[in-house]
Amino acid sequence: MKHKKLKLGVFGFGCVGQGLYHVLNETHGVKAEIKKICVKTHNKKRILDQSVFTYDKNDILLDQEIDVVVELIDDANAAFEIVKTALQNGKHVVTANKKMIAEHLTEIYELQQKYNRAILYEGAVCGSIPILRNLEEYYDNDLITSIEGIFNGSTNYILTKVFEERKNYLEALKGAQDLGFAESDPTLDVKAFDPKFKLTIAIAHTFGVFLKPEEIINVGIEKISPLDLKYARENNLTIKLVARAYKKAGKIFALVAPQFIPADHMLASVRNEYNAVLVEGAFAEKQVFIGKGAGSYPTGSAVLSDISALTYDYRYEYKKFAQGEGLPFSNNATVDVISSFLKESLVSPKDFENFKGGYRGNGHQYMTGTITLNKLKEWSEWDEVSVVLAPQVNLEAFAKKEKLKCVES
Amino acid sequence: MKHKKLKLGVFGFGCVGQGLYHVLNETHGVKAEIKKICVKTHNKKRILDQSVFTYDKNDILLDQEIDVVVELIDDANAAFEIVKTALQNGKHVVTANKKMIAEHLTEIYELQQKYNRAILYEGAVCGSIPILRNLEEYYDNDLITSIEGIFNGSTNYILTKVFEERKNYLEALKGAQDLGFAESDPTLDVKAFDPKFKLTIAIAHTFGVFLKPEEIINVGIEKISPLDLKYARENNLTIKLVARAYKKAGKIFALVAPQFIPADHMLASVRNEYNAVLVEGAFAEKQVFIGKGAGSYPTGSAVLSDISALTYDYRYEYKKFAQGEGLPFSNNATVDVISSFLKESLVSPKDFENFKGGYRGNGHQYMTGTITLNKLKEWSEWDEVSVVLAPQVNLEAFAKKEKLKCVES
Repeated sequence: MKHKKLKLGVFGFGCVGQGLYHVLNETHGVKAEIKKICVKTHNKKRILDQSVFTYDKNDILLDQEIDVVVELIDDANAAFEIVKTALQNGKHVVTANKKMIAEHLTEIYELQQKYNRAILYEGAVCGSIPILRNLEEYYDNDLITSIEGIFNGSTNYILTKVFEERKNYLEALKGAQDLGFAESDPTLDVKAFDPKFKLTIAIAHTFGVFLKPEEIINVGIEKISPLDLKYARENNLTIKLVARAYKKAGKIFALVAPQFIPADHMLASVRNEYNAVLVEGAFAEKQVFIGKGAGSYPTGSAVLSDISALTYDYRYEYKKFAQGEGLPFSNNATVDVISSFLKESLVSPKDFENFKGGYRGNGHQYMTGTITLNKLKEWSEWDEVSVVLAPQVNLEAFAKKEKLKCVES
Repeated sequence: MKHKKLKLGVFGFGCVGQGLYHVLNETHGVKAEIKKICVKTHNKKRILDQSVFTYDKNDILLDQEIDVVVELIDDANAAFEIVKTALQNGKHVVTANKKMIAEHLTEIYELQQKYNRAILYEGAVCGSIPILRNLEEYYDNDLITSIEGIFNGSTNYILTKVFEERKNYLEALKGAQDLGFAESDPTLDVKAFDPKFKLTIAIAHTFGVFLKPEEIINVGIEKISPLDLKYARENNLTIKLVARAYKKAGKIFALVAPQFIPADHMLASVRNEYNAVLVEGAFAEKQVFIGKGAGSYPTGSAVLSDISALTYDYRYEYKKFAQGEGLPFSNNATVDVISSFLKESLVSPKDFENFKGGYRGNGHQYMTGTITLNKLKEWSEWDEVSVVLAPQVNLEAFAKKEKLKCVES
């Protein structure tokens, strides 16, 4: 085997960086060693000898001996500058920075062509799940129609605790942060930006379409109401934050939003920090990948797997992009929802494309039916409205069972 | 990209062969075309023009234009001869013949080295699930401790129908055969030989150990009793045929047997012809892959994926074997079981390493506790005894709840 020994320059030594260090140390299969780690904070107590650390990025970027830059910092803008310079300087890059990748997909693709170097980022999408490599290599020939799943470990942890252990939202969020699942800025998770970044990246490798994250609508979990939870529990449902992209009539659609899921659905058994990706294709039909989506070791092991792939000159081919279907993206779609709100008259049956029923009483209101994605986006920005997708819920039966009556005509 | 156009010679045109033909026809991504198909039965009405068919294997094996032999026949011995000759004649091979591969692992490894040609067989293990490629490529650096799952689509279909639709066993088997999931000889499925072949192959790529299938104990589903089903239903369990291999104290253990599974376990939601593989490793921790394990298109698409991989010169590296851990295999282990039987005195508390309780009444008997794998093998060969693994069942509570009393002292 021609595998070569790689020298690594690492940026950042937080949760994932330390995970990588441990994973690399405990395995024998990867011919790679960390030469230098660039960190920001001076005089911090660290688990490694100070001599391996530097505070000057050029100690890595200008070191001709370093083959691979491993970028594991929080700041997406600083990360992109590091990645760009690393490629210019002839280094391959491994990164787990989903925000940076999602925001610069086109540049990242072009930089790889221009400098003939690879950027691998398996750790950026669903932690330990090898979804990008599989989309690139295995689904090459499959006509994929949709990709969906649970793309964020910390919100799934929160929803699991809220549901199964009846913890309140803030308590569950604290738990996720204590375990290192939540991002340093929790709004990226709970407002569903983090899974949106991952979905943006997945779409590039699934459909060959490079989107900007801001094109995709994201609805967070922070407004899920006690009534939503009560309704779910009483009807053998659970609520998951679902990221989804699909191909329909020659267009690509995508959305991240909380969704009622039947208890016997495969996604329902995906608990705590686990993530899941469900790929539907013409030939292999439904395929599900489940694994830890967050945490030091699972993400560190995905990063190591990319480093290992570089020892045999692997790189993403972006085959679906190369095959050039180039389908347009659209938000011109509708979804079935159950919406609950406290303040009267915020939401009206007229807002629905197809209104199925409503209810008012005990100081709260429900309305259910089909709305446009634009309406969903509008409501998602209002503090007083909670919207949960309900594609697998029989809304007529819901309206009947909950003794809903039409609020307005 | 340097991808070349491959000419294929196909052996066999049954369920998977026809699936491959359709999948190849409907996709644009793979540069490959079928030149010749060798079949056994003359004068059969076929969906393709007769000119593509031959009855002489040498029309493929000696055709210098053919790059890849795709072997999709039933007969494992004939298949091995075809594969050997194809490699000798400088052709790559794609096959889905699990029996042939499992029985000739060492030779298959050596033939590839000797003739510098590839044999790929993703379609042989769990149909559409890309498990071998992932074990080879992605878990390269992960210290895998166990691999387990549902490795047989037709028995899972049968168990699902028996459980959820309360069909009887023969009716469910007929359904599986009508849908093309069951092998031509159903005993290979229901007596758990088929999943054992797959497990043997998976072990080679997981732990780098080449076993003979006969070294692994297999217990079928055909003796699962109405009492087992009743017990499962009443206790929120289901029964799945589980294939499992694990590393413990420097040895490899493996077993295929029916097992009680809690309803909220990930494997419980894997229904009908779906398969699942659960890989546990030191770093990525638990990873689950779920997909269709049988059927024309899913298996055909796995075969096509191997053909596609050959266009960029992919081959298995058998990295775990190459890394040379070479752990010994052992059947010196124990398992927790619930055993039911009709004839008295067949099974005695003395047969158990650790007897937990027993029950006799209404013409049937139960005994529960820990037994050796050798005892399990012995019982599995007796018509009158049903044994179901119960690793996640509290056997003391079972004995108490079922009002079991010790049968003999």
